[in-house]
Amino acid sequence: MPVNLSAPDPASLLPVPGVELGIASAGIKKPGRRDVLVMTIPHDSEVVGVFTQNRFRAAPVTVCLEHLHNEAGIRALVVNTGNANAGTGEDGLRRARETCAAVAENLNLAPQQVLPFSTGVILEPLPHDKIITALPAAFGDLKPGNWAAAAEAIMTTDIVAKATSRRAALNGVDFTVTGIAKGSGMIHPNMATMLSFVATDAPVSCEALEAMLRHAVNKSFNCITVDGDTSTNDSCILIATGTTPAPVIMDDGDPRFAGLQAVITEVMIELAQAIVRDGEGATKFMEVRVEGGKDEAECKRVAYAIARSPLVKTAFFASDPNLGRILAAIGYAGIDDLDVERIRLWLGNVLVAENGGRAPAYREEEGARVMAAPEIAVRVDLARGNGVATVWTCDFSYDYVKINAEYRT
Amino acid sequence: MPVNLSAPDPASLLPVPGVELGIASAGIKKPGRRDVLVMTIPHDSEVVGVFTQNRFRAAPVTVCLEHLHNEAGIRALVVNTGNANAGTGEDGLRRARETCAAVAENLNLAPQQVLPFSTGVILEPLPHDKIITALPAAFGDLKPGNWAAAAEAIMTTDIVAKATSRRAALNGVDFTVTGIAKGSGMIHPNMATMLSFVATDAPVSCEALEAMLRHAVNKSFNCITVDGDTSTNDSCILIATGTTPAPVIMDDGDPRFAGLQAVITEVMIELAQAIVRDGEGATKFMEVRVEGGKDEAECKRVAYAIARSPLVKTAFFASDPNLGRILAAIGYAGIDDLDVERIRLWLGNVLVAENGGRAPAYREEEGARVMAAPEIAVRVDLARGNGVATVWTCDFSYDYVKINAEYRT
Repeated sequence: MPVNLSAPDPASLLPVPGVELGIASAGIKKPGRRDVLVMTIPHDSEVVGVFTQNRFRAAPVTVCLEHLHNEAGIRALVVNTGNANAGTGEDGLRRARETCAAVAENLNLAPQQVLPFSTGVILEPLPHDKIITALPAAFGDLKPGNWAAAAEAIMTTDIVAKATSRRAALNGVDFTVTGIAKGSGMIHPNMATMLSFVATDAPVSCEALEAMLRHAVNKSFNCITVDGDTSTNDSCILIATGTTPAPVIMDDGDPRFAGLQAVITEVMIELAQAIVRDGEGATKFMEVRVEGGKDEAECKRVAYAIARSPLVKTAFFASDPNLGRILAAIGYAGIDDLDVERIRLWLGNVLVAENGGRAPAYREEEGARVMAAPEIAVRVDLARGNGVATVWTCDFSYDYVKINAEYRT
Repeated sequence: MPVNLSAPDPASLLPVPGVELGIASAGIKKPGRRDVLVMTIPHDSEVVGVFTQNRFRAAPVTVCLEHLHNEAGIRALVVNTGNANAGTGEDGLRRARETCAAVAENLNLAPQQVLPFSTGVILEPLPHDKIITALPAAFGDLKPGNWAAAAEAIMTTDIVAKATSRRAALNGVDFTVTGIAKGSGMIHPNMATMLSFVATDAPVSCEALEAMLRHAVNKSFNCITVDGDTSTNDSCILIATGTTPAPVIMDDGDPRFAGLQAVITEVMIELAQAIVRDGEGATKFMEVRVEGGKDEAECKRVAYAIARSPLVKTAFFASDPNLGRILAAIGYAGIDDLDVERIRLWLGNVLVAENGGRAPAYREEEGARVMAAPEIAVRVDLARGNGVATVWTCDFSYDYVKINAEYRT
C-alpha cells in the first residue's frame, strides 16, 4: 500500500503549452493495457536528459544518447511499458531505432528527432511491431490535457500514478512545470528503474536547462533508494518548450534562473518521494537526514548505508525501534576515522543514542511511538563538519519479496 | 530451512589435544537455554584473531584487541549468546572486563589472558552478573569432547549448529583441526555477525598462524553474504596449542605450512558455507563465480553485486531464471570500462547470455531446471583478464523478512 500517496487529480495537472500527449494500447504484456505513450513538443524546444550509470545500458538509452542534441532538435518521445528492451544487444538497438523511425514518419520528422524509452521485463525482445501498430491510435489521442493518462501508461509495478504540477510567476510572467514519473523497484541513486518526464513552457537555453536538471536530479531522484538496485533503463528528461513568450533564460545570471530551478527541483522531489511512497511492498516512508559530516558526500554515504540495510528496513516494517541496526549501518558506512562516541541519533524528535550507546533519558516506548507512524524521520549528527544530506527510502516487507518473486509469473 | 545442512554428528568432531570446553546456562535471554561457553587452552598456545571492520565495534571486540598478544598469553575464551554488548559505551567495556576478570579468578589467570565474545541483541546492557554466576557450572563441564555442545551454545537465530573437523598428516605426524561457527543474519564480508573458533594441536609460530588465518578468512568468511549488513561483533579466532609434539612451524618456508594452511582453510570454508546454508530464511544456496576480471578484487566486486542484490535473491527464491537482474547487477558493480558485449553468463552449465543479450541457443526451460535445484551455480566471464573470485550467498525469502521483523519480540 503506497504510503500517504494517492493518484493525482487529473484537474490538478496543468497542461504545458506546446506539449501534447497521446496514449494507446499495444498489448505488449497484457491485452487491453494502455502501454504506449507518445509525447510531441514544438519546434525549438530544448530537451536535456540524464540516464542510468549501469554498464548494461538498455537499447533505448543508447539511442537517446545518440539522438539528443542533434541539430534538428527533439520533437517527440515514445514510451512503452511491459518490456525494457534491455540486454537485447544489436537487435534491441534495431528495434528501438525502427520504433523511432515509425514515429518520425508519422509526424514528418527525422528519426533522430524522436527519443525512445522502455520499461518492464529485461532480456526479452521488444515487440516493436506491436508498438508501431498502436502508433496511429496514440497520435489520434494527442492532447495537452493527457498528463494523468500518460502517468498511468508508463507504470510497471507501480500501484499509483505519479504526476504533479506547479505554476510560478517569474518576472511577472506565469510559467507551468508539469511532470510524471514511474518507479517502483530497482530504485537506487544514479537513476534506478525509473522514468520521469518533466516539461515547462519557459524559454531556457540548453546550457541553463542542463544545469537546472543536474541540480534537481541530485536533490531528488539521486536521493532515493528502494532496494539498492540500479536499473538498465533509468531516464529523466527535462523539456523547455519556450512556448510562452519571454526573453530566454540564458544562464544563472538571469534572476529568473533560481526561481525556475527551484520549482523544477520541487516537482522532481515530489515525484522522487512518490516513487519511494509507492516502493514495492512499502508500508512506511522514511526520511534519513545525516548532518555534521565533513561534506555532503560523506553524509550521503552514511544516509544510504542506513537506508539500504535490509535489517534496518525490516525493523521499520515491524515498527521496531531496533537502534542497534541503525548504529551498525553507520559503523560500516566506510568512514574510517569516524568517532562513534560523538554520534547522536534521533528517531523523530526523540534522542535515542549518544556517547556510543543508548541515550540515558531514552525510553523504548517513545521510540516505538515514532516507529508506529507511517512516516518516520531518522536524524544522525556525525559531529565532525558541516555537511548535510537527506535520503528517502521505504521499509522492506513480505510484499517486497512477493512482488519480486512473482514479477514474471 | 537450512539448505543441505544438518547438525554435525558429535562423534565426527575430533577433540583438539589441550582444548577443553564447558557450557552452562545463564538465562541471558531465555531461561534454561545453554548460552555461555568457556574454552580453556594450554600455556604457550598461540592465539590470533580477525575482527569486524565496523566502526561501532562491540565492547568485547575492543577488549579482545586489548588482550590479544599480551605477554602472558591467552588461556581462556568466554562466549555468550543472547546479548551482543554492542553500542553500550564505557559501561559495556566495564562489563566485558569484569566477565574476563571473573573467568581469570576462577582459573588463576590474569584478566588479560581471557578473551570475551558476545552475540545477540545490540544496545542492551550485558547481564554480566548472570554470566559470572553461571561460570562455575561451565568450569564443572569442561571437557575435550564438548565441541558439538559448544557449537549449539553460541547460536542466535541459527537453526543448525555449525562445526567440523579434519585430520591431517604433516611430515608423518597426525594433527587435528576442529572449528565451530555461528551465523546467520547481518552476514557480509569483513566479518559479519558471526563468531568462529578454530583450534589445532599443531605447533605454529604466531607469525605463521597469523598468515594462515588471513589466507583462510579471505577464502572463506570474507566470501559470503546473507544480507550485506556487517555486524559490530564479528570475530574469528584461530588457536594452535602445540600440544602434539613436533618442531614448530615457523613460517611458509616449512614444507608443512601449506598443508596445515590448506586444512584450516578447508575447515573455515565449510563453516562459512554452513553460515550461508543456514542464512536467515534461506531456501537456496548459491555459488557466484566471476572469472576473467582484471584482478581478484574486481571479480569479487562483481560477484558481490550479484550476491547482494535483493532482486537477484528474490528471483532465486522464486526459482525464476530472471537473467536480466543478474546482468543489471553486473552492470552497476562499478567497473567503468566494462565491455558488456563480451560478458558471458552461465546458470549451472547452461550458457544463458553473451554478446550483450540472451544466448541464441538458450531455452528458458533449461534455466528454470537449474534454478529449481536447492544449490545453484552462477558463473560470469568478464573476458578482460585472469582474475577469479567466488562468493557464496543464499536467497531472499518471506522468512528473511519474518525473522528480522520479529527478532526482538
